[in-house]
Amino acid sequence: MSLKFNLPTPLSRAGAMVLHLVPRWSARLFWASSGWRRIYTQGSSVRLKRLGYPRGVYSRLACRAYSAAPGSPEVMLTPERYPVQRLPFSTVSEEDLAAFECIIPGRVITDPEQLQACNVDWLKTVRGCSKVLLRPQTSEEVSQILRHCYKRNLAVNPQGGNTGMVGGSVPVFDEVILSTALMNQVISFHDVSGILVCQAGCVLEELSRYVQERDFIMPLDLGAKGSCHIGGNVATNAGGLRFLRYGSLRGTVLGLEVVLADGTILNCLTSLRKDNTGYDLKQMFIGSEGTLGVITAVSIVCPPRPKAVNVAFLGCPGFTEVLQTFRTCKGMLGEILSAFEFMDTECMQLVGQHLQLTNPVRESPFYVLVETSGSSAGHDSEKLTNVLEQVLNSGLVTDGTMATDQRKVQMLWALRERITEALSRDGYVFKYDLSLPVERLYDLVIDLRTRLGPRAKHVVGYGHLGDGNLHLNVTAEAFSQELLGALEPYVYAWTAEQRGSVSAEHGLGFKKKNVLGYSKPPVAMKLMQQLKAMLDPKGILNPYKTLPDQA
Amino acid sequence: MSLKFNLPTPLSRAGAMVLHLVPRWSARLFWASSGWRRIYTQGSSVRLKRLGYPRGVYSRLACRAYSAAPGSPEVMLTPERYPVQRLPFSTVSEEDLAAFECIIPGRVITDPEQLQACNVDWLKTVRGCSKVLLRPQTSEEVSQILRHCYKRNLAVNPQGGNTGMVGGSVPVFDEVILSTALMNQVISFHDVSGILVCQAGCVLEELSRYVQERDFIMPLDLGAKGSCHIGGNVATNAGGLRFLRYGSLRGTVLGLEVVLADGTILNCLTSLRKDNTGYDLKQMFIGSEGTLGVITAVSIVCPPRPKAVNVAFLGCPGFTEVLQTFRTCKGMLGEILSAFEFMDTECMQLVGQHLQLTNPVRESPFYVLVETSGSSAGHDSEKLTNVLEQVLNSGLVTDGTMATDQRKVQMLWALRERITEALSRDGYVFKYDLSLPVERLYDLVIDLRTRLGPRAKHVVGYGHLGDGNLHLNVTAEAFSQELLGALEPYVYAWTAEQRGSVSAEHGLGFKKKNVLGYSKPPVAMKLMQQLKAMLDPKGILNPYKTLPDQA
Repeated sequence: MSLKFNLPTPLSRAGAMVLHLVPRWSARLFWASSGWRRIYTQGSSVRLKRLGYPRGVYSRLACRAYSAAPGSPEVMLTPERYPVQRLPFSTVSEEDLAAFECIIPGRVITDPEQLQACNVDWLKTVRGCSKVLLRPQTSEEVSQILRHCYKRNLAVNPQGGNTGMVGGSVPVFDEVILSTALMNQVISFHDVSGILVCQAGCVLEELSRYVQERDFIMPLDLGAKGSCHIGGNVATNAGGLRFLRYGSLRGTVLGLEVVLADGTILNCLTSLRKDNTGYDLKQMFIGSEGTLGVITAVSIVCPPRPKAVNVAFLGCPGFTEVLQTFRTCKGMLGEILSAFEFMDTECMQLVGQHLQLTNPVRESPFYVLVETSGSSAGHDSEKLTNVLEQVLNSGLVTDGTMATDQRKVQMLWALRERITEALSRDGYVFKYDLSLPVERLYDLVIDLRTRLGPRAKHVVGYGHLGDGNLHLNVTAEAFSQELLGALEPYVYAWTAEQRGSVSAEHGLGFKKKNVLGYSKPPVAMKLMQQLKAMLDPKGILNPYKTLPDQA
Repeated sequence: MSLKFNLPTPLSRAGAMVLHLVPRWSARLFWASSGWRRIYTQGSSVRLKRLGYPRGVYSRLACRAYSAAPGSPEVMLTPERYPVQRLPFSTVSEEDLAAFECIIPGRVITDPEQLQACNVDWLKTVRGCSKVLLRPQTSEEVSQILRHCYKRNLAVNPQGGNTGMVGGSVPVFDEVILSTALMNQVISFHDVSGILVCQAGCVLEELSRYVQERDFIMPLDLGAKGSCHIGGNVATNAGGLRFLRYGSLRGTVLGLEVVLADGTILNCLTSLRKDNTGYDLKQMFIGSEGTLGVITAVSIVCPPRPKAVNVAFLGCPGFTEVLQTFRTCKGMLGEILSAFEFMDTECMQLVGQHLQLTNPVRESPFYVLVETSGSSAGHDSEKLTNVLEQVLNSGLVTDGTMATDQRKVQMLWALRERITEALSRDGYVFKYDLSLPVERLYDLVIDLRTRLGPRAKHVVGYGHLGDGNLHLNVTAEAFSQELLGALEPYVYAWTAEQRGSVSAEHGLGFKKKNVLGYSKPPVAMKLMQQLKAMLDPKGILNPYKTLPDQA
């Protein structure tokens, strides 16, 4: 049996799905090339460039909040929306500024206009009022800064690319902003092992480009790659699009250099695949969101660059069929399956409406994006073709399209990756990032649609199905306490009932810190508080984040 | 070009290497089947059976130490060989025994004969003098035991399969031995995600069998699998033979249940691929060798069982060629490469001499074992055949043999896996487990041969080349302080100079705890001490292990 598979140019609605075996596959297909990313990087503002921010969709959006467009409201100060009290830290004095200036001459920013973008998260939901931004270039400088802050009892907000989803990357009050933006040097790369050692402020996309030129890829990829820093990725234990294949940063990060609250430099920056000498201290800092130490350098192992990448975009008649398609792919694609993403029909409508992206297949209740990455184009396409025949013939998939060349692969990925952007254009977004048993993953979306009724503009579900990770998003014309009350704690309680996680990959930051108890028992929370007290006894590092308010 | 590849039955020295493309490969090849393991499990002693110990090579060897064979010397008590002072813990009293008997009726063992095997490590190098062995079945029992010990200031030695290499699994003095042997129940298995939740005392081999029947495999495999417990694997962050493909336990372990020093149960036993809610506490216990808490249950994600496994065993003319062969395999086998092991010619001589295994290829200075695991037998063999053609034609490999059926695959693996056993039959073994830059990996072996001269019987190098992990072993007729003095600290200093790790996968346990400083800076060691003090303020958990003696 051999079906033909249509590869429309440009992507258009395909009719009945037809398989076409391309005789020779490109040996260097790779979807994360700079060309593709250009979609996102157009239009970055001059101000951001001046600040040295990497360009990208997130910085562009963050900038928009301050573009003084008519009718664009100022973001509410965090303590005005949330019940939070400033802790008794010192306030930055002229003497402090002079001390900082001694440590990093010319890199102490106090200009209010320049501080704006660093005080607000890119989702425009929280805003601090920090008066100073510090831009060190070395770990030694970070150490001196923290030593000073620790002595003076000044709170510090470590900041990477400021692309976080939970308000963890901006100050809540007037914390000193410690940016890693100028710590952007690659320290070493080993071209046999693929081990990269670099400073924390390297932008993920730039690292991707760097290692790709050397025939490797980064083990993680995110929509925010054009802005996010590797240090921030590690500090938040970022998941993203390659998690299914390359696993957690807890396995791929080999070493860290961290500056502790009192300025002590902890050098665990080894480049060894295996090292069982004592406790693995770096793990404490992975995912601690800057509350236990400031990550200043990262050692990470990069997988070899796949020689062939294929993407299939498929329409499924129901969520049961989505799950069945996943099982089939897992079984038949085995080691070459590198992503299995899903989105519902409302997501497709939103990317069409707000970003003018075209649905390449017949309208369906659900869509899945299947990616393979392997070392043999011929073998990979044969495996994928077998899968597609199977899912089509068994009715799991009603329509689909497959891409093998870079441009089309990119266009298909954009449908999934730009959902976040489309949502942010739809209004105020209530965002939930949940781990749930795959079987129940979509039930919550259906449940919420009924529960919220016309109060919500859209209730959508999409995400990394292969990892059991649902991105549940609810849009409304504007923020509303009433809608929030209908959502929370309902969503968290629902998740806890399924023994899920109330934050799969986004972390807790400021906005979710008080829901930790839905996923962790009191004993664990107490231990976390002890760990915090041990490593940061004055609590100066990223205060008001990650851990719940103490009773 | 198509060479023929010889598949001798039984394995014999092949002449010139010839490639033979097998028309149809078995769809269910898998090397870790019970049949294969039978090689190792013959002859387990009745006593071990009575004790409920799983059979296997290590328990067999451990048993031999007590078999009262003529001339077999009693293992020296640890404090007689090593300079170690008993800390001021309480001594187990009759009241304590009565309290234990209340908690776990009939499972408090005080019979000296039964205690023997638990007091000595399987390498016969360290021996404690514990008077009591406790065999709880539930976490609640472990909790009650620890609550009692904590209150009474009784030191506790948590023990899994007692297969450790560094004296971490047996008491140093009279610590209470807390065995996980009866905590051997599978709690749940999810047949789509492959997530297994089980008690800590499940034997790795039994878990392997369990998940294989459900079309998955364990993400780790060790020579000691017939005896080692999953809890011990996690507590020591075991590496092993599948690390190259499936990565570290830090990525594959999803959740843990741990009983803390004071008896508090910490339940982080989630079954979620992603969970970024607060600090990842389980990571503190992975690799902490029972010094921070007692692991009582494990949640771990299992990869799908590969449909095809191929093994090639190759002879290389030099270490440079070994490295080049590795690069070639990495590049051409990509995602299906599942192991790349090497051994030197002396290892081959030892497995021949002590275990009567036959070298299946022409004698060479080095041998490598390449394993592929994939989802398509045809594709995999095509890839491997291409590699073999390439390495043969370029002179990287001078001879080789390839196995596709289970029995031969097992016989080839035995050559590599049974080196440890052959060494232990050669005399007293000084064992080093080092992470080094692959380029320098073998230099230390050559260096040591010159340095030690005739004082050593054999100086051999083998290990997980793909992970940069060298097992360096030196045999002598008997333990000798003079030889030890020639080896240490020389080996550690040499490793530190290369920025390597003095314990890649074996951990520090009792025997290596004072060399931590060769791989970790003082700041890290101080933090480790703080972590220990936080979690185990009385220091009752596995004392004298992992952390260096305090100044």
